[in-house]
Amino acid sequence: MSATVSPLAPKSYPDMPSIRGVRMATAAAGIKYKNRTDVLLMAFDRPAVVAGVFTKSKCPSAPVDHCRASLGHGVARGVVVNSGNANAFTGKKGKEATALTAKSAAAALGCDENEIYLASTGVIGEPLDATKFSGVLGDMATGATGDFWLEAAKAIMTTDTYPKVATRTAEIGGIKVTINGIAKGAGMIAPDMATMLSFVVTDADIAARALQGLLSAGVEPSFNAITVDSDTSTSDTLLLFATGAASADGQKTVETADDPALSGFKLALNDLLMDLALQVVRDGEGARKMVEITVTGAESDAAAKKIALSIANSPLVKTAVAGEDANWGRIVMAVGKSGEMADRDRLAIWFGDVRVAVGGERDPAYSEDATTAVMQKQDIPVRVDIGLGEGKATVWTCDLTKEYVAINGDYRS
Amino acid sequence: MSATVSPLAPKSYPDMPSIRGVRMATAAAGIKYKNRTDVLLMAFDRPAVVAGVFTKSKCPSAPVDHCRASLGHGVARGVVVNSGNANAFTGKKGKEATALTAKSAAAALGCDENEIYLASTGVIGEPLDATKFSGVLGDMATGATGDFWLEAAKAIMTTDTYPKVATRTAEIGGIKVTINGIAKGAGMIAPDMATMLSFVVTDADIAARALQGLLSAGVEPSFNAITVDSDTSTSDTLLLFATGAASADGQKTVETADDPALSGFKLALNDLLMDLALQVVRDGEGARKMVEITVTGAESDAAAKKIALSIANSPLVKTAVAGEDANWGRIVMAVGKSGEMADRDRLAIWFGDVRVAVGGERDPAYSEDATTAVMQKQDIPVRVDIGLGEGKATVWTCDLTKEYVAINGDYRS
Repeated sequence: MSATVSPLAPKSYPDMPSIRGVRMATAAAGIKYKNRTDVLLMAFDRPAVVAGVFTKSKCPSAPVDHCRASLGHGVARGVVVNSGNANAFTGKKGKEATALTAKSAAAALGCDENEIYLASTGVIGEPLDATKFSGVLGDMATGATGDFWLEAAKAIMTTDTYPKVATRTAEIGGIKVTINGIAKGAGMIAPDMATMLSFVVTDADIAARALQGLLSAGVEPSFNAITVDSDTSTSDTLLLFATGAASADGQKTVETADDPALSGFKLALNDLLMDLALQVVRDGEGARKMVEITVTGAESDAAAKKIALSIANSPLVKTAVAGEDANWGRIVMAVGKSGEMADRDRLAIWFGDVRVAVGGERDPAYSEDATTAVMQKQDIPVRVDIGLGEGKATVWTCDLTKEYVAINGDYRS
Repeated sequence: MSATVSPLAPKSYPDMPSIRGVRMATAAAGIKYKNRTDVLLMAFDRPAVVAGVFTKSKCPSAPVDHCRASLGHGVARGVVVNSGNANAFTGKKGKEATALTAKSAAAALGCDENEIYLASTGVIGEPLDATKFSGVLGDMATGATGDFWLEAAKAIMTTDTYPKVATRTAEIGGIKVTINGIAKGAGMIAPDMATMLSFVVTDADIAARALQGLLSAGVEPSFNAITVDSDTSTSDTLLLFATGAASADGQKTVETADDPALSGFKLALNDLLMDLALQVVRDGEGARKMVEITVTGAESDAAAKKIALSIANSPLVKTAVAGEDANWGRIVMAVGKSGEMADRDRLAIWFGDVRVAVGGERDPAYSEDATTAVMQKQDIPVRVDIGLGEGKATVWTCDLTKEYVAINGDYRS
């Protein structure tokens, strides 16, 4: 947690309604931080359906291993998240820590260990002393409450400067359902996945396969389209739980992701995932500006995304944004290095509504003043048309500032 | 050119001998910089054999287009290089500028335009006014001298803080030959190619195909194994010229790169390319530390190089180095995100001679003090053993500092 809140933080937080079937509690276990909460317990009163997406890292954390194994079981009774220590690259001790946590949480909630989901975020390589919080999970389970989303989001923060929450409603077969989500992440943020940790809960009644289908599709244009620093975490975890409590109102279980009954829910879920993902990138370490990069006219959507990410991950582009310098030559560079088809003489580039380059050279009507005015804003839209096909994609990133270097040059110690 | 010389700069420069058959001159044309030289002319008294390697950017500069076209012709009489403007993404005007420069240089040297090689470095997207120097090429050709390597290296600098020169000798069939090289580059440096501009000249008598073979092989472990910021320039150009003057001493033309007569020359050339490449990375924008990353035990050499570059390009690794923080967890992260096969439980990591992680967790004998002592040095060797195969590779990078952000946040304006 930083003393200074990102200038890109939301101006206000939504009122987060309770979601029937889930309760939460937090605790201050002193894992790394002082005078703040660092453990979150989510408890599902009845087994919740669960879907998950995890880091593609070849060196995943122990909690990611645990979640992947639990997912096969298919239902969740509890989630334990700690901040301050990622329990990644911690060998046997890491596995012992996840085992102890799962066992303690299962005892507290009266369920099986494979109904417990775990996530840890913080420094890599330090053994996690799970005894610091395993003893309090019972009390946490007893005291857990439904109206606790913002506090939950705070407990899982690391270098985040603000908690990230979002809520949406939708109707399934005429029955109103709610979706709430929290997320954390500020650095080591890159596809795929982009967030470090996010937990989304709905009271809708949706079968496991449908839920996983919705989540896998929803993550692509949201969490998998943001990057802070191109560094992919060992711990990225996005879990979606469906408590099914809306069945009490008459909502019928939906079995498949493509069921038309889910169309409204799908929109609401995707919108919520996008909201959380953008909150993550807006809290990028040291960020002062947000950049939305849209690539059109590429050979395919995949090519467009690769070009857009090449721009979004370029240190030279990101430092230029930090310096409010409309250095569109670096956009050309980043397009050129992406490896995707491009024809210099067909490229066009816009900052905001100002076209700065077209037909392989600077726009004849180029205005330094107009371009600079765009660069001085907090949110900067960049558009690149490749001029070759129909492929398009949008990704989001932030600028690269001296504060990013300062934050990351002295994080561990 | 920066006011402050990189702390990683060479302590002294070698005496650069003349190379028979090549002369050089510089001029101050005021393309962008004041009170310094910014144009270099290299003149070959007789047609020199030439080999080249260029950026893989899909948006190459106009001079790169020109050089690629000339290479088919196979011999060189002159090279014109300017700093301050890359003549990249400059459309028709860019082509007109290269045409004018080639025409003027050909007139000055009494040769064909396709015997002229061109390179430009500096800002992208600004039209280059070649009339600023096209008129003085005649005088430059007349005044050119053989003993001018360091001045030549100075004229092609942009954000470089020191000129980069190297010299080697070798024997071919008992006849002594010399190789001299200059390079420039400090940012927008990443494979492939890593340097922005480098020009190497030998008096050896080597046929075009053999020369190209030597250069293409030599660039892989040198210029293609360094990265400052993962950003590949539109303008990267490495040219190798053989004047053939040593034939006057009895050196017989070598026709193929694998001719045993070239074994000593090959070593000397590769050593010189490595020397220049390391000088480039040691002048990385804002660099205070140099990091040598060796990956062993990967599935293949290619996999090892990909993992090594994933580490070398990670902003989180580079900022940790800047902060003298032995944050080896970020090395694990970078191995994991590379996409190459890795087994967390077989990884071992060393900083210098200190093994910090082994068998999937922190080394039991880990000493923070010993590790910190390594991190406080100027040159930091990092070794990662993947534990899966025989593949190995070494790459070099520098740290990511606040100065990098400062330099690149305000370069263009």
